[in-house]
Amino acid sequence: MDWDAMRSRFHLPEGLIYLDGNSLGPLPAGTSERVRRVIEEEWGDLLIRGWNDGADGAGWMDWSARLGDRIGRLIGAPAGSVSVGDTLSIKVHQALSAALQMRPDRRVILSDEGNFPSDLYMAEGLIASLDRGHELRVVPPDAVADAIDDDVAVVMLTQVDYRTGRMHDMADLTARAHAAGALAVWDLAHSAGAHEVDVTAAGADFAVGCTYKYLNAGPGAPAFIHVRPDLIDAVRPALSGWLGHAAPFAFEQDYRPGEGIARMRVGTPPVLQLAALEAALDIWDEVDMAALRARSLELSERFAKAVAARCPDLTPALPSDVPRGSQVSFRHPKGYAIVQALIARGVIGDFRAPDILRFGLTPLYLGEAEVDAAVEHLAAVLERREWDDPRFRARRGVT
Amino acid sequence: MDWDAMRSRFHLPEGLIYLDGNSLGPLPAGTSERVRRVIEEEWGDLLIRGWNDGADGAGWMDWSARLGDRIGRLIGAPAGSVSVGDTLSIKVHQALSAALQMRPDRRVILSDEGNFPSDLYMAEGLIASLDRGHELRVVPPDAVADAIDDDVAVVMLTQVDYRTGRMHDMADLTARAHAAGALAVWDLAHSAGAHEVDVTAAGADFAVGCTYKYLNAGPGAPAFIHVRPDLIDAVRPALSGWLGHAAPFAFEQDYRPGEGIARMRVGTPPVLQLAALEAALDIWDEVDMAALRARSLELSERFAKAVAARCPDLTPALPSDVPRGSQVSFRHPKGYAIVQALIARGVIGDFRAPDILRFGLTPLYLGEAEVDAAVEHLAAVLERREWDDPRFRARRGVT
Repeated sequence: MDWDAMRSRFHLPEGLIYLDGNSLGPLPAGTSERVRRVIEEEWGDLLIRGWNDGADGAGWMDWSARLGDRIGRLIGAPAGSVSVGDTLSIKVHQALSAALQMRPDRRVILSDEGNFPSDLYMAEGLIASLDRGHELRVVPPDAVADAIDDDVAVVMLTQVDYRTGRMHDMADLTARAHAAGALAVWDLAHSAGAHEVDVTAAGADFAVGCTYKYLNAGPGAPAFIHVRPDLIDAVRPALSGWLGHAAPFAFEQDYRPGEGIARMRVGTPPVLQLAALEAALDIWDEVDMAALRARSLELSERFAKAVAARCPDLTPALPSDVPRGSQVSFRHPKGYAIVQALIARGVIGDFRAPDILRFGLTPLYLGEAEVDAAVEHLAAVLERREWDDPRFRARRGVT
Repeated sequence: MDWDAMRSRFHLPEGLIYLDGNSLGPLPAGTSERVRRVIEEEWGDLLIRGWNDGADGAGWMDWSARLGDRIGRLIGAPAGSVSVGDTLSIKVHQALSAALQMRPDRRVILSDEGNFPSDLYMAEGLIASLDRGHELRVVPPDAVADAIDDDVAVVMLTQVDYRTGRMHDMADLTARAHAAGALAVWDLAHSAGAHEVDVTAAGADFAVGCTYKYLNAGPGAPAFIHVRPDLIDAVRPALSGWLGHAAPFAFEQDYRPGEGIARMRVGTPPVLQLAALEAALDIWDEVDMAALRARSLELSERFAKAVAARCPDLTPALPSDVPRGSQVSFRHPKGYAIVQALIARGVIGDFRAPDILRFGLTPLYLGEAEVDAAVEHLAAVLERREWDDPRFRARRGVT
């Protein structure tokens, strides 16, 4: 992989070191023009006809499936098993509600403390709404394997912990879930575009994810859902919107689920966001995921090692032998202020309550120079106690 | 109102007569530039900081509420009672699930045959998922008033029928629902931006709608939901996503609903679509809704009268004394092919199964000249039997 060439595919503000692509990926160079064309030449000139007759032959109506297939390639999902749309929280609800239907005699959703809170909140809301005595059981990440028992209907996990970067073994935990008669729902928010993923080899029953982090599809970019092909016919969508209907334009009075993954669609997909996603995926077509992973680990190790040497006050969030995603995290009681001071120096990392500093290190637009410079800035912030400044105390935070 | 000046605010393809703004409104002139700025100057340059520090002072995080307030003005909803995001189908689910929670002893969702199918499908999916013996009762539009009895938990209606244009009396039916102890959920998909709406005067408990029709926010534009202010504190969201949490960035393990309407947010909002919505709302700030309605009726009557005179084969979908929205519809067994033949002549109307030809007539960008020309084309298609052409037989249709 020619990483320098890859880097030229992104717009990166001059002088900024961006280690927060795991919150919001940067702007691919082709996005603005792609969205402009969809707005002016498709919406503007084709108007309603754009749904069926897009400028490139396929109308907007097909994009959820077409872009789903392109994401599928990055997560090991076969064509026709991924649909794009809505938000990740909605996709979590779809996966969970389908999984619970398939295990009507079981009452436990098992998750871990490293899961992203919205996944847990969606499970809570679903459980309260169903009112059938389900329980959300949340255990520490390393206790998940042993907590999978015969009461568990579904194991719902985010593969890579949004705070520490800790990576679960998807194949192993899925096999354990299946052995206990449970289903596995995997959230790939911090996996898709971060490293190699193979939902098929892992046997994942459902996988969901967002596209605004490593995939670089922009703020509020749509989510995706994968359903194991041999399960999809058994899914009776709880969010049974018209675009998931077998014949949306027959305007029948009763719902009939669409063929295959199409039933996971709900309402009208966000076309401008899909255009931005498409521009982002053009870059991914050229990425060798194994090379990406190797380079990501190289940069991560370089960063972790240098921080250990230069910033003794920062505690690694993970032991070095624990598998991790494409981020490196540390703990410090003044984490929030440190990140703010770092941002003031033009190095954008991220803070996650209560005390985590996290840094996304993706090879697409980062190299040794940025990694080394970031460490220098971090060391300076700590050595000079720059974080101890009233400007950096008030808390505001995002994504 | 200076309607000619208003018209110049839209991009309309040369030579096209667009009577389908009730499917997808046309492109406002300022949209492309507004979206470009958000992509290049906010996403591109601010990156993750765009969530809190937008170029215009307010970050993306506030847009769901800010744009909700601007839509609120068009539907008579007070500030702080409307939230933007997701799709209309999801907003229907939110309103329905909340309403059912508030009437735990009742089992009927009452709707009508004129409701948009997705609303009925979402009710079906919710009922199946709850599995507590709820029933979706669907009656003819004019039978709704008498069907509201003590079993009804919620009356769910689309104010303006997407096929015929028939308009329900929102205040009257809401009063009847309340008198019977039921709640009212109103879908304003064909109302918002079409005529004056006052959800407050009507006492509507919940109102939902989309922004890609009369509001002109573009393909896949987000939906909105209004909850009556005195009810919102009792809403425990079933779709309890993190952005509806009281403190999304505290990353607490348990869900606590956000203050007021903020709890109706679910996941990360689609920022590019919100930018397009904002550009569309800039136009609406200048529209006098009473003048819009008067002009809409003027154009509609002119159209209906001329069609009656020139196209005797077309049957009006509604008696002339029935209140209607900003559209005029007819029935014809060859409706689909007629609409296709009309499109081939550069007049875009819409077909709705089984036999409805519908024409949206909004004064924002249509005047007497277009109305008269459309009638001439329609008469020619019928007189010359242009619809009887193999090109116009295959069915494909959208939105």
